[in-house]
Amino acid sequence: MLYHVRMDVHLPPDMDPAERDDVLTREKAYSQRLQREGRWPHLWRIAGEYANISIFDVADHDELHTLLSGLPLFPYMRIQVTPLATHPSTITD
Amino acid sequence: MLYHVRMDVHLPPDMDPAERDDVLTREKAYSQRLQREGRWPHLWRIAGEYANISIFDVADHDELHTLLSGLPLFPYMRIQVTPLATHPSTITD
Amino acid sequence: MLYHVRMDVHLPPDMDPAERDDVLTREKAYSQRLQREGRWPHLWRIAGEYANISIFDVADHDELHTLLSGLPLFPYMRIQVTPLATHPSTITD
Amino acid sequence: MLYHVRMDVHLPPDMDPAERDDVLTREKAYSQRLQREGRWPHLWRIAGEYANISIFDVADHDELHTLLSGLPLFPYMRIQVTPLATHPSTITD
Amino acid sequence: MLYHVRMDVHLPPDMDPAERDDVLTREKAYSQRLQREGRWPHLWRIAGEYANISIFDVADHDELHTLLSGLPLFPYMRIQVTPLATHPSTITD
Amino acid sequence: MLYHVRMDVHLPPDMDPAERDDVLTREKAYSQRLQREGRWPHLWRIAGEYANISIFDVADHDELHTLLSGLPLFPYMRIQVTPLATHPSTITD
Amino acid sequence: MLYHVRMDVHLPPDMDPAERDDVLTREKAYSQRLQREGRWPHLWRIAGEYANISIFDVADHDELHTLLSGLPLFPYMRIQVTPLATHPSTITD
Amino acid sequence: MLYHVRMDVHLPPDMDPAERDDVLTREKAYSQRLQREGRWPHLWRIAGEYANISIFDVADHDELHTLLSGLPLFPYMRIQVTPLATHPSTITD
Amino acid sequence: MLYHVRMDVHLPPDMDPAERDDVLTREKAYSQRLQREGRWPHLWRIAGEYANISIFDVADHDELHTLLSGLPLFPYMRIQVTPLATHPSTITD
Amino acid sequence: MLYHVRMDVHLPPDMDPAERDDVLTREKAYSQRLQREGRWPHLWRIAGEYANISIFDVADHDELHTLLSGLPLFPYMRIQVTPLATHPSTITD
Repeated sequence: MLYHVRMDVHLPPDMDPAERDDVLTREKAYSQRLQREGRWPHLWRIAGEYANISIFDVADHDELHTLLSGLPLFPYMRIQVTPLATHPSTITD
Repeated sequence: MLYHVRMDVHLPPDMDPAERDDVLTREKAYSQRLQREGRWPHLWRIAGEYANISIFDVADHDELHTLLSGLPLFPYMRIQVTPLATHPSTITD
Repeated sequence: MLYHVRMDVHLPPDMDPAERDDVLTREKAYSQRLQREGRWPHLWRIAGEYANISIFDVADHDELHTLLSGLPLFPYMRIQVTPLATHPSTITD
Repeated sequence: MLYHVRMDVHLPPDMDPAERDDVLTREKAYSQRLQREGRWPHLWRIAGEYANISIFDVADHDELHTLLSGLPLFPYMRIQVTPLATHPSTITD
Repeated sequence: MLYHVRMDVHLPPDMDPAERDDVLTREKAYSQRLQREGRWPHLWRIAGEYANISIFDVADHDELHTLLSGLPLFPYMRIQVTPLATHPSTITD
Repeated sequence: MLYHVRMDVHLPPDMDPAERDDVLTREKAYSQRLQREGRWPHLWRIAGEYANISIFDVADHDELHTLLSGLPLFPYMRIQVTPLATHPSTITD
Repeated sequence: MLYHVRMDVHLPPDMDPAERDDVLTREKAYSQRLQREGRWPHLWRIAGEYANISIFDVADHDELHTLLSGLPLFPYMRIQVTPLATHPSTITD
Repeated sequence: MLYHVRMDVHLPPDMDPAERDDVLTREKAYSQRLQREGRWPHLWRIAGEYANISIFDVADHDELHTLLSGLPLFPYMRIQVTPLATHPSTITD
Repeated sequence: MLYHVRMDVHLPPDMDPAERDDVLTREKAYSQRLQREGRWPHLWRIAGEYANISIFDVADHDELHTLLSGLPLFPYMRIQVTPLATHPSTITD
Repeated sequence: MLYHVRMDVHLPPDMDPAERDDVLTREKAYSQRLQREGRWPHLWRIAGEYANISIFDVADHDELHTLLSGLPLFPYMRIQVTPLATHPSTITD
């Protein structure tokens, strides 16, 4: 099932640089693992903002929440989830 | 280039049924043509709302505006466009 | 899977009374059928507003959208859907 | 009487870990006691967000406020309360 | 129990004058009956707006909804309800 | 003259406890003095929130501002003031 | 006492021209009478919008509401009232 | 002096086609005259929306309001004006 | 030319008292100088809020920005500027 | 291609002065380089606010994001991007 997820990241500008690099490294690894598993099929950067729009493909809400709340950047994020149904005019998904 | 587009449709409940069917039929044909051309790669229904989230893949803003303003349902829509850049962690697009 | 759904109804005050009664009768029958089927386990009136908060229990987003967009009152509604996951502290659901 | 309550939690990312675990432990115990007493019949996690939607069943506004303001996480919460009346179409509550 | 209720009224400017006078007359009689019964202890006009702030004193949410949805002007209103608890510093209510 | 005042309080969770108790004690004494003087006839707690709705009865805007800006909690408050006129249907105030 | 009032006017584009001219003529006469009486000391046009910002100088909320609700354009207006107190740094009012 | 102006146009979908073409023709002629006069140096279409962002270069607020309120489409527009000052880092304007 | 300016001040409650007094003293002196020069003809306190509504009378946007950004409290302010044109019905300004 | 970009800057008032001057100096140099390269054709100060409206002229979303996220002040900014298409009535761009 597809979920549309917008993530806005707010890292404190005076965050310890080492801590910052660590959390970003873990975030990248975490997201790329999920992408390889096919559970995070789309990840786009919103041009000009420290935010992304993603499409998740998971079994249910619980799995979605587990993945999102497990994001290393989760404590620094504002997340909005929108469930996506099949559009009657779509010829692809 | 990718554009994230949200379209909210507001058709007057007392719209003439024939007119309604006509505009919906033209809308479906129009969107499926663009999908086949690869310019509208994703079209999802927002579950529970008369709205969709789409991804357009076009050359530039002018082409996007021409396509969107040409939608038969355009006069009945509220549209929000978000330009999508490549995310540093993405492994696909 | 559980979905939290808020429905705000806006019927034109000058709507034809017969038409109004008809759509409300069909709406009640429709919702009570889904309730009996266990797909609409909770339906509460927001005190003071022509709006309700409901909990739907369905298989996926598509089924939810089919049920909601099939509501006789759908053309007169503003609907907001929130997917509900299992809370780590809950002792019931 | 039923109250719909949305709770959004904002814990400072740099909160002392011990303090954090303590308040979360007390919060879980507090909420599960109220659930067992039947005063907090529903507690759902909003998928993707550090927030929940709950249904409280209590005698009146004062009791609701006492319970909510007594939450260990109360100082870190934004809370929205919506009184729920009986819906004319409901077949259950 | 006390409920804080804000009512914003939107009457179409081109409403039939007779119809308008009728609904306003019935509204006034309805509200003054409830005031005399002590169920609507406070009714104030928001200066400059076709809106009021009221305090209702009723047994529960159902009674509140019955009274509010029974207002002749209900179809032309936007209503916001806020449940009021006893304030720890109050010396009166 | 009556003023409707909503006060939302935001005390930093990590505020020094002694400082916190002091400001709350002074706030309670301050508000109860004004209540006894009849200038603060109503003070209600918004159920579930660290906020109140009050009715002030004072001579003019200056007096209102003096009283509100003199609240010990004023630096921690978001305040919204709404002037209340006499409602044509009221039978009391 | 001074009140800051913002008035946004929304006249239906398809309003009968004669009706439109009549209400605008009455509005101008009404406002200029109040200005001459010193009760409407300032009336400015918000550049680019069919809206104005005004300062009223009247005895109390009731008088303000009487004047505003008596505006010929009142049914077509959205009005926001802000009570103005004396600023500690002002050297004029 | 420069003014940033956003114009959102809302034409009723069921507007008489002849009337619609007439107002659009007059609008185009009006805007192109002002552009030639150098008073409307920039006019851009917001991609995907029936809205534009413009820069006006006029002597003062009155002139701006005269030009904007004179737009044939003015009754169908929502307009937001932002005064633009010289930026300390700009090397051009 | 007239500009309507709303200033909302947010001073950190735990600001060093001496620093606070200093910036407030400089702010008062600064504003009173501009008032005496006739460039800040109106300065009103919004009753109940640490905010003011002011009218500035200056030559152009640049002068306005210089004055506002020079306010000692500028770093602690949220400012909204609205350009004011001459109202067709005004008999004064 | 043209992008409309609004940048709101929020520097902590208690920021280390040296650090502040450094980031502002780097920001000015960075922006003036891009202006000289023709990629940042317009940069205006919003009168009264620590914010600017800019027009960028770049090849695509990725280039825009690279430039914006490279701004020294980026961590202290809220940025809103609006893609600009060619307006059918424009006689210049």
